[in-house]
Amino acid sequence: MKESVKMKKVEGGVCAAKGFTAGGIHCGIRKNRDKKDLSVIFSEVPGTAAAVYTTNLVKGAPLVVTKQHLADGKAQAVICNSGNANTCNANGIEIAQQMSGLLADELGIGANDVIVASTGVIGQPLDIEPIAGGMKALGASLSKDGSTDAAEGIMTTDTIKKEIAVEFELGGKTCRIGGIAKGSGMIHPDMATMLVFITTDAAISSAMLQKALSGDIQSTFNMISVDGDTSTNDMVCVIANGLAGNEPVTGEGEDFSAFMKALNTVTVSLCRMLAGDGEGATKLLECTVTGASDLKCAKTVAKSVICSSLLKAAMFGADANWGRVLCAIGYSKADVDVNKIDVSFRSPKGEICVCRNGAGVEFSEEKAKEILLEKEIEILVELNSGTASSKAWGCDLTYDYVKINGDYRT
Amino acid sequence: MKESVKMKKVEGGVCAAKGFTAGGIHCGIRKNRDKKDLSVIFSEVPGTAAAVYTTNLVKGAPLVVTKQHLADGKAQAVICNSGNANTCNANGIEIAQQMSGLLADELGIGANDVIVASTGVIGQPLDIEPIAGGMKALGASLSKDGSTDAAEGIMTTDTIKKEIAVEFELGGKTCRIGGIAKGSGMIHPDMATMLVFITTDAAISSAMLQKALSGDIQSTFNMISVDGDTSTNDMVCVIANGLAGNEPVTGEGEDFSAFMKALNTVTVSLCRMLAGDGEGATKLLECTVTGASDLKCAKTVAKSVICSSLLKAAMFGADANWGRVLCAIGYSKADVDVNKIDVSFRSPKGEICVCRNGAGVEFSEEKAKEILLEKEIEILVELNSGTASSKAWGCDLTYDYVKINGDYRT
Repeated sequence: MKESVKMKKVEGGVCAAKGFTAGGIHCGIRKNRDKKDLSVIFSEVPGTAAAVYTTNLVKGAPLVVTKQHLADGKAQAVICNSGNANTCNANGIEIAQQMSGLLADELGIGANDVIVASTGVIGQPLDIEPIAGGMKALGASLSKDGSTDAAEGIMTTDTIKKEIAVEFELGGKTCRIGGIAKGSGMIHPDMATMLVFITTDAAISSAMLQKALSGDIQSTFNMISVDGDTSTNDMVCVIANGLAGNEPVTGEGEDFSAFMKALNTVTVSLCRMLAGDGEGATKLLECTVTGASDLKCAKTVAKSVICSSLLKAAMFGADANWGRVLCAIGYSKADVDVNKIDVSFRSPKGEICVCRNGAGVEFSEEKAKEILLEKEIEILVELNSGTASSKAWGCDLTYDYVKINGDYRT
Repeated sequence: MKESVKMKKVEGGVCAAKGFTAGGIHCGIRKNRDKKDLSVIFSEVPGTAAAVYTTNLVKGAPLVVTKQHLADGKAQAVICNSGNANTCNANGIEIAQQMSGLLADELGIGANDVIVASTGVIGQPLDIEPIAGGMKALGASLSKDGSTDAAEGIMTTDTIKKEIAVEFELGGKTCRIGGIAKGSGMIHPDMATMLVFITTDAAISSAMLQKALSGDIQSTFNMISVDGDTSTNDMVCVIANGLAGNEPVTGEGEDFSAFMKALNTVTVSLCRMLAGDGEGATKLLECTVTGASDLKCAKTVAKSVICSSLLKAAMFGADANWGRVLCAIGYSKADVDVNKIDVSFRSPKGEICVCRNGAGVEFSEEKAKEILLEKEIEILVELNSGTASSKAWGCDLTYDYVKINGDYRT
């Protein structure tokens, strides 16, 4: 990947790229009329498409239907409701097909070109009535400014809307790529992740789009964890409509690398937003592992640290309890020499080394507290055994996580 | 294992068996003078011994020393402090050796026959001074009534003392086996578990004792989880001093089976106490999986359910959110047919089926709430795919878990 690729942050989320509009409405799946519960994304021309799905054996019905629709590598629209996951229901597949069909009719496209998704409670029948009744309004909500509404319509326990877009060049043409995401609890992706919808006007074949996405998630969405629970409805998908007019990307090379870098900028931003908005979270945790013998080792260590309930609770309390970092590395099954590990904590308030060669060093508890009271904490782990590195993202464990999940259904 | 083995619960914990005494004192490792921090168990004659240890790569120094001492399969005493784990310290091994030596001198036995253990904060030097200064008092504390004091001296965030003893027959002789345990957080054992000390007056070779213990923990201590964190200092050990006078158990057979059953009675009791006293816990959760295709599948499913933060929080809120049980089974990697799964919740208030064939069934939310408000909840998972079964134990996730771990060190 060339470092020379220029990237500029732009407004507009999933509508930043040419030819895309989006929208969101309250149709009545949720009781609260102030909360949008149905979202749409639309490309004025059909695009290539790629997706990755949860590895949970229990798979939401919408994922099954989307997978069928994307078999030809093409898509033109996304429909997604919140408030009900449409999972573990007897008629889930039928409902997901009806959702696709209703949107296709409204937009005058093929049902086969619709990506369908749902998020919310598992195991409660999803009523098609409010969705059918709201379809006209949903179509009417489509606009170039609609990314924020779409981001809002897919939120469950999320407290912030998650959108991002960047501009970059591909073969001399200006391209844009942007995305929205939802996810706050039940986040511990494995090969795929929470609901993420990405749009781009770059021209790229569906094969290369899938390759870019499948490669990217290994170091992005698969490296975040809020609570160790892998959802049944996780999905990340991308639509590329080619309206930027670049020479289509159909193989490896400079253009593919530039696209990968732009995609990665979007996905890392969304990962940080997802982890930082973990249910009840007050802090974003980023663990950076360096000096690992290989990539697998680096990733295993980073993810184990981020997943430790004990470390997460310590971070909530701004407690520099580095023994819990070492403990989490120790049980990660990664092949490390514990006597070579250095650990530091870093935030905008500074950096402090708390462990060297696997043993504690004297440090100022006062300074450590000051660093750990910040909203974004970096946990730096140097294994001193090689050159591989990896990052993982998570959040602290708080009273509010327990509160939110102690009675989610009612 | 014959069901005819008679087992009677008796008082006395680790002192229930002939020839064992125990005690505990406050020596000054902890600042709080009201909290005991040093414990001892002593057998008047040397016994055979067996142990299992944490699989965490970061291993407490006491475990390394104990492993050396048990290489000959013999032990006569246990010393254990709380308040400091003596782990990730430059001079940890030396301190653990000094602890063994000091106790050996006090009791007039070989240092090689001492099992040494520590529990508490990781990565802070353990001062030998208070231990050396308290050694006379520790020796003097030994008594036939001392099991409770010993159980208290090894507690960290535990809220209840954990001890149990049973009486059974072996070759016509009355034998006893009893144990004490500590553990509340950082509990997710893997091949070994929290600190558990078991004593028996049965005569059994060290090889068969190790075989009994290594076999037993697979379905007991390895099937509990409080928070998914595997400690660096986990250890379970048994001393058998043979004073019951039974024909020594030196191979498989009826006597070995009877011993296994007695051991299992003690370990299952301690497991339930450990899980039910998980940090901040208000409920003991027991997941029973039946109808699995094989034992591995049953264990994987049971443990995945018990480990789900989302389910644990739902149980705290007495919320019959069975979708989280299915979700946890789905990501467990166990080979199951999700469309065959039935789920019920049971407690002293009754039993309620909430999911059949992988989909929700109508049930009374009121009745479910009544069942789930109890202190001990059974989660019954029927996979309908075979005859293997397994149990796992855990606890709910509460505000207090976060509180306890948000600032453990200070």
